[in-house]
Amino acid sequence: MDIATLREKHSDHWMKACAIRALAMDAVQAANSGHPGMPMGMADMATVLFEKHLKFDASAPKWADRDRFILSAGHGSMLIYALLYLTGYEDVTLEQIKNFRQWGAITAGHPEYGHVAGVETTTGPLGQGIANSVGFAMAEESLRARFGAKVVDHTTWVIAGDGCLMEGISQEAIGLAGMQKLGKLIVLWDNNSISIDGPISMSDVTDQRARFAASGWKVVSCDGHDPVDIDRALTEAKGSDRPVLVDCKTHIGFGSPKKQDSAGAHGSPLGPDEIKATKAIYGWDHDAFVVPEAILTAWRAIGARGAAARAEWEGRMAALSPAKRAEFERQMSLGAPKKLAAAIRAVKKEASEKLTKVATRKASEMVLAAVNPVMPETIGGSADLTGSNLTKTADLGIFTPANRKGRHVHYGIREHGMAAAMNGMVLHGGVRPYGGTFLCFTDYARGAMRLSALMGVPSVYVMTHDSIGLGEDGPTHQPVEHLAICRATPNTWTFRPADVVETAEAWELALTTTTTPSVLALSRQNLPTVRTAHTAKNLTAQGGYVLAEATGKRRAILMATGSEVEIAMKARDLLEAEGIGTRVVSMPCMELFAAQPEAYRKRVLPAGPVRVAVEAAVRQPWDRFLLGERGSEKKAAFVGMEGFGASAPAERLYAEFGITAEAVAAKVKALL
Amino acid sequence: MDIATLREKHSDHWMKACAIRALAMDAVQAANSGHPGMPMGMADMATVLFEKHLKFDASAPKWADRDRFILSAGHGSMLIYALLYLTGYEDVTLEQIKNFRQWGAITAGHPEYGHVAGVETTTGPLGQGIANSVGFAMAEESLRARFGAKVVDHTTWVIAGDGCLMEGISQEAIGLAGMQKLGKLIVLWDNNSISIDGPISMSDVTDQRARFAASGWKVVSCDGHDPVDIDRALTEAKGSDRPVLVDCKTHIGFGSPKKQDSAGAHGSPLGPDEIKATKAIYGWDHDAFVVPEAILTAWRAIGARGAAARAEWEGRMAALSPAKRAEFERQMSLGAPKKLAAAIRAVKKEASEKLTKVATRKASEMVLAAVNPVMPETIGGSADLTGSNLTKTADLGIFTPANRKGRHVHYGIREHGMAAAMNGMVLHGGVRPYGGTFLCFTDYARGAMRLSALMGVPSVYVMTHDSIGLGEDGPTHQPVEHLAICRATPNTWTFRPADVVETAEAWELALTTTTTPSVLALSRQNLPTVRTAHTAKNLTAQGGYVLAEATGKRRAILMATGSEVEIAMKARDLLEAEGIGTRVVSMPCMELFAAQPEAYRKRVLPAGPVRVAVEAAVRQPWDRFLLGERGSEKKAAFVGMEGFGASAPAERLYAEFGITAEAVAAKVKALL
Repeated sequence: MDIATLREKHSDHWMKACAIRALAMDAVQAANSGHPGMPMGMADMATVLFEKHLKFDASAPKWADRDRFILSAGHGSMLIYALLYLTGYEDVTLEQIKNFRQWGAITAGHPEYGHVAGVETTTGPLGQGIANSVGFAMAEESLRARFGAKVVDHTTWVIAGDGCLMEGISQEAIGLAGMQKLGKLIVLWDNNSISIDGPISMSDVTDQRARFAASGWKVVSCDGHDPVDIDRALTEAKGSDRPVLVDCKTHIGFGSPKKQDSAGAHGSPLGPDEIKATKAIYGWDHDAFVVPEAILTAWRAIGARGAAARAEWEGRMAALSPAKRAEFERQMSLGAPKKLAAAIRAVKKEASEKLTKVATRKASEMVLAAVNPVMPETIGGSADLTGSNLTKTADLGIFTPANRKGRHVHYGIREHGMAAAMNGMVLHGGVRPYGGTFLCFTDYARGAMRLSALMGVPSVYVMTHDSIGLGEDGPTHQPVEHLAICRATPNTWTFRPADVVETAEAWELALTTTTTPSVLALSRQNLPTVRTAHTAKNLTAQGGYVLAEATGKRRAILMATGSEVEIAMKARDLLEAEGIGTRVVSMPCMELFAAQPEAYRKRVLPAGPVRVAVEAAVRQPWDRFLLGERGSEKKAAFVGMEGFGASAPAERLYAEFGITAEAVAAKVKALL
Repeated sequence: MDIATLREKHSDHWMKACAIRALAMDAVQAANSGHPGMPMGMADMATVLFEKHLKFDASAPKWADRDRFILSAGHGSMLIYALLYLTGYEDVTLEQIKNFRQWGAITAGHPEYGHVAGVETTTGPLGQGIANSVGFAMAEESLRARFGAKVVDHTTWVIAGDGCLMEGISQEAIGLAGMQKLGKLIVLWDNNSISIDGPISMSDVTDQRARFAASGWKVVSCDGHDPVDIDRALTEAKGSDRPVLVDCKTHIGFGSPKKQDSAGAHGSPLGPDEIKATKAIYGWDHDAFVVPEAILTAWRAIGARGAAARAEWEGRMAALSPAKRAEFERQMSLGAPKKLAAAIRAVKKEASEKLTKVATRKASEMVLAAVNPVMPETIGGSADLTGSNLTKTADLGIFTPANRKGRHVHYGIREHGMAAAMNGMVLHGGVRPYGGTFLCFTDYARGAMRLSALMGVPSVYVMTHDSIGLGEDGPTHQPVEHLAICRATPNTWTFRPADVVETAEAWELALTTTTTPSVLALSRQNLPTVRTAHTAKNLTAQGGYVLAEATGKRRAILMATGSEVEIAMKARDLLEAEGIGTRVVSMPCMELFAAQPEAYRKRVLPAGPVRVAVEAAVRQPWDRFLLGERGSEKKAAFVGMEGFGASAPAERLYAEFGITAEAVAAKVKALL
């Protein structure tokens, strides 16, 4: 539909949509950076969506049963900021719009979760939003099954661009959503045929409609500028029994005389002259950042449109039993249940008493077997390695279209899609997701794992087969740099527990934090219980602690994690047998150790003794504790990996790469 | 087709295929680990492919014009080892087959490039092989356009499983190949409906044929066990004007009475009894690892089948002019041209003389403008950030179906697919690929970047916008941990050059190595030339060097990389003005510095002065040089990032995060 027709036949709609466009042009111009073309192209879609379909109440952005609106094409951030300002979200003032992309403003360059109520997830890295949205929709299905449609019944709406759809992660999301028949997931594709480099045809010939249909999606199309056609398409999209793609044919930079339908509208300000010319074409005769009162009032009415529905919902919530309501609220806010601590303690106690010898991946399964019954909000899963990651405990059931109460997800071979879906579940609320693959395939999920950390979302990554201990599958499957990768990432807890006890403690921390994702690096191979004396206290919470003290004069400190703690303990035996007093420090979480008070760290790592760290991985994260924290180069050594692994049985690999108790003891003696 | 029919009507074929199956079962059993089901399922496909279609000569595995055979489903490694043994590849002896997955054997758990002639690329991490294969096919097109179809005219054959097709990277590969109309790329899909967790239907409903067709592929189907139908399908697949998917309907673990068509056949030995029962069904009455002479002879004849074609090709090669032949051989072996050194030197000299002030991404473009004309084998590209990464120099032309001589690729928004395609190009030979995205999106390409390092493939990653200096796009686009990630990865050169001169030196190293991938971390913002005195010598080759010496007594050493070298130089000015003798060490490549002799490192980093490192990233990789290398905790400090960035103009961010010359000088003074 052309602008003349819109101005003439749909003037109310047009002026509302132009308010979005004008704000986007003005804010990008003021910031001298940003992406005006996408908000200008999708303003009509967004206006109809917010005016007629999206269930929301701007005065209650955290209303649990609101529809979720996810701007996967996050570079078009001014679209969402304009919508939130216009509909009356309290935090998003005109001042914030004017400060778009400036230090301290909540209106960041890309939408950042936690800055702005109404931004449901951080987007910008392309494809993440659409993949998060699968998790949102899964969480909604799970909660609806558990609490009933009277209190949980909402839709997840996504705006995705060609960039989102070209990223591989989108295929994982599309495949997963299609298999799961997520009928309340609706993706609006901003089909504007332009990417940063130019026309899409320069890099892609994909028929997106056919592609989505191939994975079981319903496909609807519309003229993305015609409000009547948009309304028809969105109406058709609702109530589907499978996820829906709405192909919205739009013009990037709609109305800009020189830049519409060109890459020039994508990522740069239009310039004052072009803005002026565009506004003239719109019939928008207002200064920068000015939205006439009548139009603002109309938008504010849209923002208040959901108030009645929310009040009714609150009535239905009030009708729930107090216990059920409290449980709903606990799960939505990610609060840990009271029974968790006791469940963890019981696992620890039994392991310390029985001296259980299992792989830590098995230990993780044992912990989950105790935790899952007391945390109905956990949803586990694996990227097609269920029997290896051991994420599925006995009574979880499988989450499928026929069994929304199931709590284990067969994610398929989709590590990135799994991680992003987990983020979406946490962000939705009501679900504590954990998902497994091999630690090495952190590589495939990095994009989403980083966003867990950046958003402060406590997704739990169950990363088994965490070293050359994986054995015969060889170096493609053996992580050596991945612990360093996780530890280099801010706001990420990298746990590498040594036995059942530390595994239980790590899980307790991972399931109680509301702000930090956890990576559990777990062994394939069996490990002895090293925490032989039961403590109610969670020692892993200190990150590192004295596991075994030197007898007599302390001349050496051995530091280790995970499967190498056993090696350190054996090395201690060798050294003590020669009269060399040796302390062993288990370091299951460097980040938590580094966060301890100096006095504690000094007690654990006093100056004086030689230090040897042992970990079947690269040294990079260890220098801090070997050379720093009162250490010194002349009295420190590392036993670990210098390059990639190899294909052979695990024991042979440990021997060939020199990660043995004998090698550790020899290093100590060479330093004394 | 069932086994009874095969045994009766196609007994020659059947026995050859059963030789593969028997070896796969026996080797996995002997190793007590591995994946027998896939080789058993794809043996018929592979037999027909090798017998009738694949252009190869087992006695000359490096024949430049051979067809490439890529086992993307790398877990089925015994398929390729069996084929190579049976057809007579010299290295793959029966002894090696018997030592499958053992220490020192070339028959690693997954096929490892460089271990075995005939293994064209390392596979195992799913989806990599199919994505590599796009690069192989692109390299073939490029070389054919440049050297003519008389000497370059071959096909890339791929075996991919459901795992490969579920990974997101496959969509990037499919989309890129479809757009590029790579008619000589043929993917055989092992459509066996089983993954590790069970039936594919548990995790996917995708109609793969429709999906590939949606991206412009030709689709052919066949009964993957019927040799006649297979031959028909492979014949149909050849000579296409677009890439081809062959949907091969197969049975995993074909013939195993208890495990056929089940996940049980996927990743475990069948067990002696089941092997015995299966061999009985096959009519294969031979001891483990025994292939009857007649069958081996038939297979060896297949291995020799291409000898005549190769001899003819050698005749055609001989008919080329000596100069053209030499150039072909140089490019195929990745040798750098003689003119490269002079081109690099000229860029360096001019920059040192003119004191050029540009962003290092712009410096990179200047270097490429000098290099590309003397290296016709370079193929640049960008994942839809061409104007930001500055990878396209003036005369490259665009690589498209209509212009195979073009040397810049619009990869689309496909970082992972781009990286994997680059690996494929290097492995094919004749192409030196480089490709760009933002450093932060290393996250999206990690799976393939790790394989560059593991394989020793010199792909070049042009990673611009390498810090908070990116500015307003905010923390989703600002790397802080990515330098640590690259540096933690073995066999990866992470360059962060400070100016045009170092950028030119980094490029020279990246383009001359034949064994190591390079990451060039380049600034968005302008930087002054700090190498003001021209040196013919490549100082970046030493990794770190003294950029500015202290005047008078040396009391401080500042270390920095990239955009922070300017800050270090300014801090030096501040300190020197106060009489504090300060050396500045530029450290463009930690890996190369660490590889220098101790005596050199000691000259650059002597004991005594305080040390402060400054880099707008996390500290993790720096402890080695701050605390180690004769440093000490009491005399060391770091100025950099502790968490994620923020959205604001770059200068404001540097000030707010305290990465300034003043902050560096203050740290030094606090330590003195």
